[in-house]
Amino acid sequence: MIKVIKIGGNIVDNPELLAAFVHDFAAMPGMKVLIHGGGVMASQMQKSMGMTPVMVEGRRVTDEATLKVVTMVYAGWCNKNIVALLQGAGCNAIGLCGADGNVIRAAKRPPVKVEICDEPGFQMVDYGYVGDVKADSVDAGFIYSLLERGIVPVFNAINHDGEGNLLNTNADTIASSVAIALAAYKYRSRRDICSACEDCIHCSDDGRLTHEVELIYCFEKDGVLYDKDDDSSVIAEIDRDKFAELKSGGIVADGMIPKLTNSFKAIDSGVSRVIIKHAKNLLNDKGTVLQ
Amino acid sequence: MIKVIKIGGNIVDNPELLAAFVHDFAAMPGMKVLIHGGGVMASQMQKSMGMTPVMVEGRRVTDEATLKVVTMVYAGWCNKNIVALLQGAGCNAIGLCGADGNVIRAAKRPPVKVEICDEPGFQMVDYGYVGDVKADSVDAGFIYSLLERGIVPVFNAINHDGEGNLLNTNADTIASSVAIALAAYKYRSRRDICSACEDCIHCSDDGRLTHEVELIYCFEKDGVLYDKDDDSSVIAEIDRDKFAELKSGGIVADGMIPKLTNSFKAIDSGVSRVIIKHAKNLLNDKGTVLQ
Repeated sequence: MIKVIKIGGNIVDNPELLAAFVHDFAAMPGMKVLIHGGGVMASQMQKSMGMTPVMVEGRRVTDEATLKVVTMVYAGWCNKNIVALLQGAGCNAIGLCGADGNVIRAAKRPPVKVEICDEPGFQMVDYGYVGDVKADSVDAGFIYSLLERGIVPVFNAINHDGEGNLLNTNADTIASSVAIALAAYKYRSRRDICSACEDCIHCSDDGRLTHEVELIYCFEKDGVLYDKDDDSSVIAEIDRDKFAELKSGGIVADGMIPKLTNSFKAIDSGVSRVIIKHAKNLLNDKGTVLQ
Repeated sequence: MIKVIKIGGNIVDNPELLAAFVHDFAAMPGMKVLIHGGGVMASQMQKSMGMTPVMVEGRRVTDEATLKVVTMVYAGWCNKNIVALLQGAGCNAIGLCGADGNVIRAAKRPPVKVEICDEPGFQMVDYGYVGDVKADSVDAGFIYSLLERGIVPVFNAINHDGEGNLLNTNADTIASSVAIALAAYKYRSRRDICSACEDCIHCSDDGRLTHEVELIYCFEKDGVLYDKDDDSSVIAEIDRDKFAELKSGGIVADGMIPKLTNSFKAIDSGVSRVIIKHAKNLLNDKGTVLQ
C-alpha cells in the first residue's frame, strides 16, 4: 500500500505542529508521498512586501508578482524546510515542484465563471498564473523510480506548463492526481517490480500489475463529523449510499461536499480508499474512511 | 566529458541574459550539471521586506530571517524558474538543494576570524546559518542516477546539515565540490556504465573507471584578462607556472587569486580542466582554460 498524504498550510506554517507531523510521517513504514500547501505564509509574505492577497472563493488570484511570492514560499521555504526536517528525522526525502523532472504538467486556467457566495449570478474571474492538473499529466514512472530507491517525494503546489511558465495549482488536486496516477501505473511483469513493492501489488483485469494506493487528507478536524461542533462525532466510514444520505440530511455541507465528491472520483479512478483525518492521528486509525 | 557549469546572480536575476543562457545550455550536448547563485535578488527581497542585508567580505551574514529569504529566493523562485525555462527549451532538468535526496551536506561554519579590507587586524564574524561544503559530502552516485536517466540537475546554494537545518552556502564552492565528486566517483566495471557515459569514461590507476569532468565558471568578463579594462586581452591558457608568473607580476590580483587557487585545487582533485568565461560564450571556445 502506497500512502499519498496531503497536509495544509495550518500544519506547514506552525513549527510545533510541523515537527510533530514530520516525526510521525518519518516513522510511517512503507512507500509514501507527501503533498503540502502553505497558503497562510504566502499571504503573510505578500503583506510584508506591501501586496494585498486577492482571493476569489478561496482561491488565490495569481498575477506575476504573486506567482514569484507563492513559488518562493511553497517551492522554496516550505518545501525545503520540510525536506530538511525529514532528513533530520532519518527519512530520505526529495522536494519537487511539477517542473522538476517534468513530473507534473498543468494547463493555465482560462478566465472562468465563478459563483460568488452570497451574490446573485456569476462573475468572470481571470485567476492569472493558475493551473489545473489532471492525473494523466503526472509522470508516475518517475515517482516510482524515486520510491524504489527509498526516496520520498515531497510535492508543493507549483507546477509548470512545459513551455517555460510556472503555475500556481491546488494542493488537494495535486494529491488526488498523484494518487490516481500511481494507482493507474501498470507494470508489465513481476520482473519489473522491486522487492520493496512486492507486498502491495495486485493484478488488474487486463493481467497487468498495479500498486494499491491510499490517499490521506490531513486537516484540522478529526474527520467528517455528524456535528461540526463536536469533534467526537466522527463518522467512521462513508460509502456512496451513506454520502447521498448525509448530503440530503444536510449533515455534510459547504466545502466538505466537493472534498468528498473528489475523493469518490479518486476511488472511481483506482485509488483503494481515501481517509480524512487530523494530522495528529497519522499513525492511528482514527478518522473517516471513504471507500 | 561531463560539464559542470556555474552561473552567478548577474545572469539569474536578468530575464534577457537568463533566457539566452538557458537557450545555449539546453543546446549543449552531453551530460551537464548547472549550479546557480541569486544574490542580487536575495538582497532586493530583504530590502522589500524592510530588512538590511549584512555582508562581510562579500559573504552574507545569515540570521534566521535571512535564511528564510535566501531559501525562498535561491531554492524557490530562481531555481524553479530556471528549471521551468529549461523544460520549455526541451531540457529535462530537476532543481535540487542539498537536502533533496540528501545529495549535499554542509557543516555550519563556527565564528571565524576575518581580515577586513582596509582595516587593521582581524574581526571575529559569526555568519549564522552559513555552511561549508566538501566534495566528500556530495552524493555523486545520486547525481549519476539522474544524469543516466537524461535528467539535468540544477543546484542552488542552499544545503543542509542532516539534522534538520538548512544552511546558506557558496555557489562557487558547490560547483567545485560537485565537479570533484563526479570526477572521483568510480565505477567497478564497464557493465555498470550506461551507454550515454561510454564516450567520456577513462581508466584510473587502480583499474576503476571514472568520468572526465570539466568545470566552467561563467561570469561577467570574457575570461582572465591581462588588462582588466580590456575585454579583448583574454589569457587563453593558464598552467601552474603561468599562474605563479601572473601573480608575481600583479596581473592576477584580488578576488581572482582565490578563484584560480580553488580551480587548481579542483584540478588536483581529478577535474580535467577549469574554464573561466562569459556566459554568452558557453557554446564557443572563448575564455581562459586552466589545466
